[in-house]
Amino acid sequence: MINRLVEKIRKTGAPIVVGLDPMMKFIPEQIKEAAFEEYGETLQGAGEAIWQYNKGIVDAIFDLVPAVKPQIAMYEQFGIEGLIAFQKTVNYCKEKGLVVIGDVKRGDIGSTSEAYAVAHLGKVAVGSRMLPAFDEDFATVNPYLGSDGIRPFLKVCQEEKKGIFILVKTSNPSSGEFQDRLIDGRPLYEIVGEKVAEWGGECMGDEYSYVGAVVGATYPEMGRVLRRLMPKAYILVPGYGAQGGKGADLVHFFNEDGLGAIVNSSRGIIAAYQQEKYAKFGAANYADASRQAVLDMKEDIAQALVGR
Amino acid sequence: MINRLVEKIRKTGAPIVVGLDPMMKFIPEQIKEAAFEEYGETLQGAGEAIWQYNKGIVDAIFDLVPAVKPQIAMYEQFGIEGLIAFQKTVNYCKEKGLVVIGDVKRGDIGSTSEAYAVAHLGKVAVGSRMLPAFDEDFATVNPYLGSDGIRPFLKVCQEEKKGIFILVKTSNPSSGEFQDRLIDGRPLYEIVGEKVAEWGGECMGDEYSYVGAVVGATYPEMGRVLRRLMPKAYILVPGYGAQGGKGADLVHFFNEDGLGAIVNSSRGIIAAYQQEKYAKFGAANYADASRQAVLDMKEDIAQALVGR
Repeated sequence: MINRLVEKIRKTGAPIVVGLDPMMKFIPEQIKEAAFEEYGETLQGAGEAIWQYNKGIVDAIFDLVPAVKPQIAMYEQFGIEGLIAFQKTVNYCKEKGLVVIGDVKRGDIGSTSEAYAVAHLGKVAVGSRMLPAFDEDFATVNPYLGSDGIRPFLKVCQEEKKGIFILVKTSNPSSGEFQDRLIDGRPLYEIVGEKVAEWGGECMGDEYSYVGAVVGATYPEMGRVLRRLMPKAYILVPGYGAQGGKGADLVHFFNEDGLGAIVNSSRGIIAAYQQEKYAKFGAANYADASRQAVLDMKEDIAQALVGR
Repeated sequence: MINRLVEKIRKTGAPIVVGLDPMMKFIPEQIKEAAFEEYGETLQGAGEAIWQYNKGIVDAIFDLVPAVKPQIAMYEQFGIEGLIAFQKTVNYCKEKGLVVIGDVKRGDIGSTSEAYAVAHLGKVAVGSRMLPAFDEDFATVNPYLGSDGIRPFLKVCQEEKKGIFILVKTSNPSSGEFQDRLIDGRPLYEIVGEKVAEWGGECMGDEYSYVGAVVGATYPEMGRVLRRLMPKAYILVPGYGAQGGKGADLVHFFNEDGLGAIVNSSRGIIAAYQQEKYAKFGAANYADASRQAVLDMKEDIAQALVGR
């Protein structure tokens, strides 16, 4: 799957993943009204609104980008009905040829971690059958529990040719509380980064590993160091746009070949119509605003990479 | 909710939480056969088998213990249908008067962490209504992302009078890879433990905080240190039984008042009938075997606490 992701990044020329993190306040009123009219102000109504909103965006951007990253929390808060919208979104994006990164940040140990790996990347045994559950292409994983938490994911990745992105240095302001603490003079995120490189060596695609890393755009200098520590790991870069990361900050995350990083934008794309810059599209054409925001982001990154 | 948990622990005399982590290999054949006959070898069939299996155990143990801890990964691997079984289990346990700890180990940042908090402990806005989603009483949370990940949970805990258990030192063999690394001469888990005490101070119940910690039974000496660092935090202790933790190891996790810790056992109770010790019950009476295993565990812990 990492080979497919790299191929799609090359083909689209856009190292961009669109974060499908639908918040109710992003969804245009006309979509919410239609859903609530059909299902009432219920969890089912919310699920339907999310699904219709996502579908509009996916239809508008699927030919421009290699991948999408639905954040499962935004669906899970609506319970079962929200997760049905998540499942529909995953399936639809795959039908449209997009690589789907499930932003699930799961992490546990042993058989429990195996269950999460199976839930999102693998197949589960039911009697004599093996059945897929959520079936994304990649998943994000939390490393705090150590190798016991990661190995079951590696096993499923090897079997299914799928991949993971392990949290190394997250984009939030307080990520340093634990991740930056010095261990023998080196920050924890470097120690985790080294383990990512080690685990990744066991799961290599053609050029890059199935095992990638999450490193926030808001910490470009740390990105530079981690880029060197994990040369074969694809870096998933959140924090561009709304969280303050700029195109120029991104260059450190890429390798010399122009590959090695994929930059996420969520609200900057899916709620573009709510920004002054794209207000002219209006709520009715929210998906066209998202398309334009993708084109602008692609240009911003391309400029930064040319200019380095 | 922490007050209610403490009250129930006092009343039952059993600082025990039963881990409802149903694996297909634990479920007696007669239950699986009935479910597959009705729904086929499908995810729905698996969900039905899990739900019937759980119901039998809950009916057999609800009067003996204060709390249950369903591990969501074991349900999530069966997709939507598995999560419906999770939801049914949570609701049924609450009807039976049990405190429900959702072992979800979620952790993200900002609005995403808020969405997880809402999903498991709070209520979500849908139009003009506020609706609960999974609605457990407690949830487990991963601290790797720092305060930005924890604060949204604290907010929901304060609003809803619910609680969290933050991973501090997990029970698995490789937990030390990151958690034991020395920072200014002290292991990371101590630094996390101090933050737990700090966060917990903002969310106090009568005697204990809404903010507890997870510390594995397999590390009793670390439990002793952490007990002192977080005097007001309830400690959720996994790793008893199957993972090697023994009653005598548990004393360090309790305060002098005999409170302050609640010990989890999952397969040791729910799959007791598969152990030689309880084989005489047979698969047909699996729930009675679970009841006996709870009684034996209660005795084991009581002996250890008396003997200290």
